[in-house]
Amino acid sequence: MLQSRGYGATRADDPLHPLDFQRRDPGPHDVQIDILYCGVCHSDLHTVRNEWGNTVYPVVPGHEIIGRVAAVGDHVTRHKQGDIVGVGCMVDSCQRCDACGIGLEQYCENGFVGTYNGEEMHTGGMTYGGYADNIVVHEKFVLRVPPSLDPAAAAPLLCAGITTYSPLRHWKVGPGQKVGVVGLGGLGHMGIKIAHAMGAHVVLFTTSPGKREDALRLGADEVVVSKNAEEMAAHENSFDFILNTVAAPHSLDAFLVLLRREGTMTLVGAPATPHPSPQVFNLIMKRRHLAGSLIGGIAETQEMLDFCAEHGIVSDIEMLSIGNINEAYERMLKSDVKYRFVIDMASLGK
Amino acid sequence: MLQSRGYGATRADDPLHPLDFQRRDPGPHDVQIDILYCGVCHSDLHTVRNEWGNTVYPVVPGHEIIGRVAAVGDHVTRHKQGDIVGVGCMVDSCQRCDACGIGLEQYCENGFVGTYNGEEMHTGGMTYGGYADNIVVHEKFVLRVPPSLDPAAAAPLLCAGITTYSPLRHWKVGPGQKVGVVGLGGLGHMGIKIAHAMGAHVVLFTTSPGKREDALRLGADEVVVSKNAEEMAAHENSFDFILNTVAAPHSLDAFLVLLRREGTMTLVGAPATPHPSPQVFNLIMKRRHLAGSLIGGIAETQEMLDFCAEHGIVSDIEMLSIGNINEAYERMLKSDVKYRFVIDMASLGK
Ligand SMILES: [Zn+2]
Ligand SMILES: [Zn+2]
Ligand SMILES: [Zn+2]
Ligand SMILES: [Zn+2]
Repeated sequence: MLQSRGYGATRADDPLHPLDFQRRDPGPHDVQIDILYCGVCHSDLHTVRNEWGNTVYPVVPGHEIIGRVAAVGDHVTRHKQGDIVGVGCMVDSCQRCDACGIGLEQYCENGFVGTYNGEEMHTGGMTYGGYADNIVVHEKFVLRVPPSLDPAAAAPLLCAGITTYSPLRHWKVGPGQKVGVVGLGGLGHMGIKIAHAMGAHVVLFTTSPGKREDALRLGADEVVVSKNAEEMAAHENSFDFILNTVAAPHSLDAFLVLLRREGTMTLVGAPATPHPSPQVFNLIMKRRHLAGSLIGGIAETQEMLDFCAEHGIVSDIEMLSIGNINEAYERMLKSDVKYRFVIDMASLGK
Repeated sequence: MLQSRGYGATRADDPLHPLDFQRRDPGPHDVQIDILYCGVCHSDLHTVRNEWGNTVYPVVPGHEIIGRVAAVGDHVTRHKQGDIVGVGCMVDSCQRCDACGIGLEQYCENGFVGTYNGEEMHTGGMTYGGYADNIVVHEKFVLRVPPSLDPAAAAPLLCAGITTYSPLRHWKVGPGQKVGVVGLGGLGHMGIKIAHAMGAHVVLFTTSPGKREDALRLGADEVVVSKNAEEMAAHENSFDFILNTVAAPHSLDAFLVLLRREGTMTLVGAPATPHPSPQVFNLIMKRRHLAGSLIGGIAETQEMLDFCAEHGIVSDIEMLSIGNINEAYERMLKSDVKYRFVIDMASLGK
C-alpha cells in the first residue's frame, strides 16, 4: 500500500486534522500523482460534516486536484513522469455502460466512483481525496493541464469549471445568445467567464448590488439585482438559457419567466430543502424547460481545460495553508471568498 | 351583427342556461360555421365558474368545435360552403410575431385570442365559444376535418387531441421509444392512442387499477398503478418521454426518476395549487428535463387531424344533449366519463 499524509475528519462534529492513511499501490494503468494544489468545494464541507448522510469516516475531501506525475504504471500511455495533471470529481466508472461508452462517465449507470468517500473498485475500501500529498488514479481519469494555465488557479476548473462548462456546452450556448448566470460564487464566477468566452451576451443575477463591479470585470455584460422586481421584469421572455448555480432554496419562477420560448434553465446546485415549487403555468406558456446537470464527462473535462487555456481562463482564487482549512470552511459558508479557496499543498509539510 | 343562440353563464355561481348573443358579421376572410358538435373540456368548467379569476360574463364556453360551413367571405380560399370543419382553442393571433411566423400561434408573443372569453380583435368585445348554433372565425383558424373521421368523435381532437399530439411530436416520439402517459382522462386517452400510432411502446400510469383493461384496449402496451411502489421501481431510468396529463397536485419525482438519461417529462395540465416541489437531485443526476406544452399551432392541428384520419383515431365520447350540460359538469368533476362529453348541437333546437 502507498502511504499518504493529508487532512481528514473522523467524525461529523470534528474539525479537519492531519491524518495518515493508505492508498492502493499503483497498478499497470495507474498514475501516481504528487499533489501541488487542491481547490475547496462546498461538497467537501457537506461530506466532512455528513450533511448528505452518506459519509464513511475517516474521510479525506478534495476533488479539485492539480499535481505532478510521480510515477506511471507499465501500461500507461497518456501521461508520463513530470507532467502537470488534474483530477476532478471522479476517479473511476464501470466503463461498460452506455453512458461510459459515450464519455458521460458522470452519468454512469452503475455509478461513478467519487474521488473521495467513494467505493474503491480495486481494494473494496473507500477513496480518499486531494487534501493530501499524493493520489493514485486510473490514467483515464487523469487530465492533462495545458502549460499556459497557472496550476493553482486551474485547480477549481476540475469541479467548478466543468460543472458550468458542461451545461453551457450541452445547451449550445454561443454568439447571438442571451445567457443568464444566477449567483456569483465559485460556480457562478466560472459560469460568467466561460459563457463570455463562448461568445454569449451574459447577464449575472445576484441578490447583492455590491457584486456588480466584480461581475462586469469577470465578463458579464449586464448585472441584475434579482430582488429588484422592475429590473427583473425588463428581462421577461428574453433569455435563451439560464445557468442557475444557487443551491439555497429560492423562487425558480422568478427566473423561468425570463426565458424565451423553448428556453432552458439548468440547475447545477441541489438545495438541502426544496426550492418553492415552480408554477407549471410558467413551463406550459412558452414550452420552457427546467433541467439539471452534473459535472461533466472526462473527455469533456479535457476539452474544458483546453478551452480555458485557449481563452486564458482560470479561477479567481485565494491561496490557503492547509492548517487554515477549518477557518476557510467558516468563511466559505459566509460566501466570504473571491471566488475559490485553493490549498497550497506545500503547506502540508510545514 | 350575427345572431347566435347557445348556452352560457352570467355569474360564477350560476348554472349554464340558454343565452342569445351576437357575433361579428362575417368579414371577407371569415368563415361562418353552423356548429354540429362541441366537446366539453375542463377549461370550460374552470372558466364558467371563474376559477382562474379572469372570466368576463356573460361567457359562452366550448373550444372543441365541429361544424358545417354556412358561408364564407369573399377572400376565403381554404374553405367552402358545406365543408365539415373544426375550430379549437384559438380563433386569432397577431400574425406578426416570431411565434406566429413559424406556426406557433399558441405561443403568440402578443397573446392568441381564445375561442371564448378572449378579446375579439375586430369588435373590441369578447369571443364566445362553441356551446352555440354558429360561430364566425378567420379562415386561418378553421381546420379541415377529413371525411373519414366521425365528426362528433373528432370534436375532442381540437383540444384534447392537439394538446397531446403537439408534445409527442415536438419531443420526437416514435418507434423504439418507451413513452409514459400519466392519467387516463380526456387528455390521457388521446395521448395513449396517438403515442401508440406513432409507434412507441406506451405505458399508462394510473392510480386506478380498474382502468387497466381500458388502457390496454386504447393502445397501451403496459399499465402501471402509480401507487404501487414496486411496480414503479421496476421502470426506473427507462422512459424516453413522459406525457403528464394530470392537473391535480401530485409527486412529480415519482415519474422523474422513471426517465432515462436526458429524458423529458412534459406537463400539459396546470394545477390550481402547486405540485409538491420536485427534487433538483432527480434532474441533476441524469440531466433530465421537466417541461410544459400548450395545445399546438394551427398547421400542427391540421397535421394532427390528418394523422388521426390516417390512423383511424378519434376520441371515445359520450354524446350529450345541451340541456344536460350542468349534470355533465358534475360527472366530469368525478372523472365519470369515458372519455369526453360531446354536445350534440341539434339538441339546442329542441
Ligand atoms: Zn465540487
Ligand atoms: Zn458506466
Ligand atoms: Zn380544452
Ligand atoms: Zn403572434
